[in-house]
Amino acid sequence: MMSKRHSPDAPVAVFDSGVGGLTVVSRLRELLPSENFIYLGDTARVPYGGKSRETIERYSLEIGSWLVSQGAKMIVVACNSASALALETLRQALPVPVVGVIVPGVEAALASSKTGHIAVIGTKATVGSGAYERALRERRNGIRVTSVACPLLVPFIEEGLLEDELTDSVLSRYLAPVLASDADTLVLGCTHYPLLAKAIGRVAGPGISLVDSAANCARAVRALLEKTESLALRSAMGSLHINFTDSPDGFFQVVGRELGLGAADVAVRQILPLGS
Amino acid sequence: MMSKRHSPDAPVAVFDSGVGGLTVVSRLRELLPSENFIYLGDTARVPYGGKSRETIERYSLEIGSWLVSQGAKMIVVACNSASALALETLRQALPVPVVGVIVPGVEAALASSKTGHIAVIGTKATVGSGAYERALRERRNGIRVTSVACPLLVPFIEEGLLEDELTDSVLSRYLAPVLASDADTLVLGCTHYPLLAKAIGRVAGPGISLVDSAANCARAVRALLEKTESLALRSAMGSLHINFTDSPDGFFQVVGRELGLGAADVAVRQILPLGS
Repeated sequence: MMSKRHSPDAPVAVFDSGVGGLTVVSRLRELLPSENFIYLGDTARVPYGGKSRETIERYSLEIGSWLVSQGAKMIVVACNSASALALETLRQALPVPVVGVIVPGVEAALASSKTGHIAVIGTKATVGSGAYERALRERRNGIRVTSVACPLLVPFIEEGLLEDELTDSVLSRYLAPVLASDADTLVLGCTHYPLLAKAIGRVAGPGISLVDSAANCARAVRALLEKTESLALRSAMGSLHINFTDSPDGFFQVVGRELGLGAADVAVRQILPLGS
Repeated sequence: MMSKRHSPDAPVAVFDSGVGGLTVVSRLRELLPSENFIYLGDTARVPYGGKSRETIERYSLEIGSWLVSQGAKMIVVACNSASALALETLRQALPVPVVGVIVPGVEAALASSKTGHIAVIGTKATVGSGAYERALRERRNGIRVTSVACPLLVPFIEEGLLEDELTDSVLSRYLAPVLASDADTLVLGCTHYPLLAKAIGRVAGPGISLVDSAANCARAVRALLEKTESLALRSAMGSLHINFTDSPDGFFQVVGRELGLGAADVAVRQILPLGS
């Protein structure tokens, strides 16, 4: 669809299946402090990572349309599962630019790897889609990719088990095929995983560089706002409005503290159910 | 609402947030082989166990109305979270009897306990609701209850880690307060948990009896069908129609094999999204 012209002060919208996408918001606010942000976490239907393409596309379209109705000038898909399965559908349906997390992560991984062997961890939906492999191979012939679906990591993170021997045991099992290979770069292909970066780094060891899709996505958003001359013009700190489709549980408090989202300019509300 | 008269051959409807409620269906078919059954697993919005009362009530009402539209003569809420938070709402809204899993489990636990100390494990939603404690205390003064939310067990079960040292480690941690008490009865307050009964029994040890809410719920359904003279009249094996709101993943295959649901009379289909 054709883009319509938005005011530079229109918000940048960010969505995820739940709370994890706030890791992207946190990086965006560091890079782009003047922007207004609106966030939607679909906590009534979380998680997406075990669901089908059809369902993830439907949920993403409902959310994208709602964010456009809120005046968003750009949509950031801060969810690897939705980026892997619904990005093209969103781009065709929505009248504003749509940025995902996969291509920024892929470009950072290619810049990092010396061995030409890149590992990717993510949800079942993300890994099953093959989106990372395709994007890596499109950009470099002969690249080798080891992908591992890690379905237990999101539950562990949501339980706050960030520093725990059980978490390290689960990680050791998931990362065994990566550690047995000559992969030198590990893409954290889920927006929850930066919260576990310390444990992942400990288990992966010093020979493997971690690529955080949240940070790379934030840089891609800044580049696109610059290119389209859509950067916010004010010099004051922008606002952040956080919306959930169900009341968030304790994990939101953990993430809020961890990411410093407790500031007075942050408003949290529950919106009406989508898709009803 | 007033019950309307159904044909005895009308189906008994069973629902759960996902695949776990099939443990109840399996027990029901053993006890009531002549009945027709219709099952709805809300895989597009699974799990319910971390969501709010408001959201669980809304989902349960959407599903209950759909099952009534399919001609169900009775609704079995084969989900502890929905039984804990939405049972009264369903009873007020639906024109057919509604049976949950909590009261049957509570009655079996009271019959089992000699020490007067009963432990309950379940999701956050179930444990947070206090539904088991209330139902136990209403039936026996002075009963002592230890409830533990075990949010990682459903992900472990859905990953098929039924016999795994990681699962035993997680169970040891969750059951520590139970093992430190004089509780002699442990209610498996989630319809996924019977699939993990062997590991739970191993970690709990021989001094603790397990109460399986699936088996007790099935007996309560049979008693109610007898009391209301609604038992199916035919002598042949009844049918089972399984419906999901999203295509089920590999876990359904595991459960189907485990429960012997692969028979030729079992039809599986995906229905249109509810709530849209």
